[in-house]
Amino acid sequence: MDYLAMDHQALEAERQRLSAMYEAEKAKGLKLDMSRGKPCSQQLDLSNEMLAIQAFRTEDGADARNYGSFEGIPEARRLFGELLGVCPQQVLVGGNSSLNLMFEVIAAGCRDGFGGTPWDEGKKKFLCPAPGYDRHFRVTEHFGFELVTVPMHEDGPDMDLVEKLVQDPQVKGIWCVPTYSNPDGYCYSDETVRRLAALEPAAENFKIMWDNAYVVHYLEDAPEQTLNIMDACKACGHEELPVLFCSTSKITFSGAGVSALAAGPKTFAAISKAFFPMTIGFDKVNQLRHVLFLKDRAHILAHMEKHKAIIKPKFDAMRRLLREGLADCGAIARWTDPKGGYFISLYTLPGCAKRTVALCKEAGVVLTGAGAAYPYGVDPQDTNIRLAPTYPALEEVEKATQLLCIAVRLAAVEHLLAQ
Amino acid sequence: MDYLAMDHQALEAERQRLSAMYEAEKAKGLKLDMSRGKPCSQQLDLSNEMLAIQAFRTEDGADARNYGSFEGIPEARRLFGELLGVCPQQVLVGGNSSLNLMFEVIAAGCRDGFGGTPWDEGKKKFLCPAPGYDRHFRVTEHFGFELVTVPMHEDGPDMDLVEKLVQDPQVKGIWCVPTYSNPDGYCYSDETVRRLAALEPAAENFKIMWDNAYVVHYLEDAPEQTLNIMDACKACGHEELPVLFCSTSKITFSGAGVSALAAGPKTFAAISKAFFPMTIGFDKVNQLRHVLFLKDRAHILAHMEKHKAIIKPKFDAMRRLLREGLADCGAIARWTDPKGGYFISLYTLPGCAKRTVALCKEAGVVLTGAGAAYPYGVDPQDTNIRLAPTYPALEEVEKATQLLCIAVRLAAVEHLLAQ
Repeated sequence: MDYLAMDHQALEAERQRLSAMYEAEKAKGLKLDMSRGKPCSQQLDLSNEMLAIQAFRTEDGADARNYGSFEGIPEARRLFGELLGVCPQQVLVGGNSSLNLMFEVIAAGCRDGFGGTPWDEGKKKFLCPAPGYDRHFRVTEHFGFELVTVPMHEDGPDMDLVEKLVQDPQVKGIWCVPTYSNPDGYCYSDETVRRLAALEPAAENFKIMWDNAYVVHYLEDAPEQTLNIMDACKACGHEELPVLFCSTSKITFSGAGVSALAAGPKTFAAISKAFFPMTIGFDKVNQLRHVLFLKDRAHILAHMEKHKAIIKPKFDAMRRLLREGLADCGAIARWTDPKGGYFISLYTLPGCAKRTVALCKEAGVVLTGAGAAYPYGVDPQDTNIRLAPTYPALEEVEKATQLLCIAVRLAAVEHLLAQ
Repeated sequence: MDYLAMDHQALEAERQRLSAMYEAEKAKGLKLDMSRGKPCSQQLDLSNEMLAIQAFRTEDGADARNYGSFEGIPEARRLFGELLGVCPQQVLVGGNSSLNLMFEVIAAGCRDGFGGTPWDEGKKKFLCPAPGYDRHFRVTEHFGFELVTVPMHEDGPDMDLVEKLVQDPQVKGIWCVPTYSNPDGYCYSDETVRRLAALEPAAENFKIMWDNAYVVHYLEDAPEQTLNIMDACKACGHEELPVLFCSTSKITFSGAGVSALAAGPKTFAAISKAFFPMTIGFDKVNQLRHVLFLKDRAHILAHMEKHKAIIKPKFDAMRRLLREGLADCGAIARWTDPKGGYFISLYTLPGCAKRTVALCKEAGVVLTGAGAAYPYGVDPQDTNIRLAPTYPALEEVEKATQLLCIAVRLAAVEHLLAQ
């Protein structure tokens, strides 16, 4: 049966059938949380060995316990340089939160303009490929930017639109999650990266906020290699365009990892200068712990295999149950098929995402709020739902997905009936 | 002999004598750094045990390795509540830098005004008791405040002047280091604390930035107990006036400690809200490590006894050598006699501090730059030098102080000759 081809009576019958199923699910008293991209305990356990590391002497002879090394210890700058594909001198290693580094880079742009005109002088806008990461959008909203939505495609943001929008000098930058994007799990194509690198924005100090949060977080045989944005920018003479970020939040501990940023020489110097009043320095003992545990990219990839072994079955179960649970009802939903990252993106019939999330919540399954992946938390089509299968146990993912399918169907039928 | 009573010829003879002594010191090729209040390795070793702690389960059953507990883990909030003398619900536990918390509180005041009028709307000033902590002043300078100097006395800032200045609505707050102040080592008197608490500032959201950096850092039998600012403020109905800060930077590791802030209910809520976009959360594994190692105030005090055993001899040697090295030359210098903290404050003849520091530097002893303890780095009298005896070894402190005394004398004689 195809819901979209059904008449009122048939829809009403289906609504009653689904309602009964939904009530039966609700009666189970589920209490599950799939709202956030959090690692599960088993994943965190993979890095417990790191907690036993008691070193504090860095390779340059400094004492990681004491003040100093504002830009990070040399071995950590090298490790993150390797991960980000840039030289260590361009890397600043921070505390446990890459979001915090992004927040402070945006703050620096607003106040100091990276040595140019501060963004705060005059009206300012930021490009937000959507669906995207709510906390990115929130940072720029916090600093008073107008958020400009750019549709996100399978190969990255709509570049025709981006190229047009950056001709506006009020547009100061763009948020990017180039690898296994949040929430779709898309990877930017080489062409997208090259077109981003080739941008000639009207704003003098436009920045590509390149959050490579899932750079090694693959679910297949090997990580997809998004083109190196720094190399691409250099090739265009645009070295000062990108600011790169990554962290170990989903490699070691999401609450106690290490973050890093990288930028072209002038931007890096401006960021270092702007960061100076902010702190005496980041936690270098934790930086050292991480380097000794993670060693290099090859070891990190081996470590990520272990993550994959834990979370891939959850992704697979969710995909399978979505396929089964949403079969034979016509095109009322589609979902992405990520090769890595932390999310599956589900698209309901337009106008049905909120209702679907509400139905799930009422039956004890908390999903990310509908609309969260869009600027200002508003999905204009009310269609996208971000699914985060990593944290709950496999059986819980299964139960939650089964309920979700009923909710998607019920919301669709209700919606069609109301038309 | 009293330099101040000597004639030109006698001064010139003394200058020649001192120059010879200075050249002899210089020839020793010293290479010492007394510029920063850094713990020495022996002090850091006192907390090495903490590095062996591998716990991650918090008392409320949460996983410190994962996201969550934005305001800190309960046991850490309780510990810092005890240290700051406030209830845990008013405490936010941060990362490794209390300066960072202060920076973000000032940022929040500028942008959000703690729910009132943002400080950034209009001209803004901040009161800076001086000499004080350069990095405090730097934060407010960074955010565009006009820094207003308030003289620092033995019992705290000049309160007559403070009471007058806060009648200006542009004055948004005051920096305070109430216990063993940086650099003088003074403790605020009960009366000073009560007068601060009783302030009725014209600015609607005036804040007392109460940095209790040295709250348990005593060098005598027990810590001096500065009056509890929160209690004093409550007694006046001014609970929203203070924001309290402290950290373990000089209890455990200066580069990898834990910081905390506390504030009245409304201010606390406003700070939490303003901090939300900034990070997903602070490093809770390190918070837990600290609580398990430090336990409570009583254990912290026992731990501080060990610090005292290491650093008091350095303070004592410096005081003794200053006394000996600056005897019988008249009132060309005075210095403070701190009962705790990290510094001794030396006052040369007006106009001689810079020259003294330069002489020391030329002979291989780096001191904090003269003027650093004043707003904009300018000591209007050019008289204060901050001495930091904790980091170098005892013999190094001795050598540096001996050189320093010669430099103080030589600079004084040169100055008197030039008049």
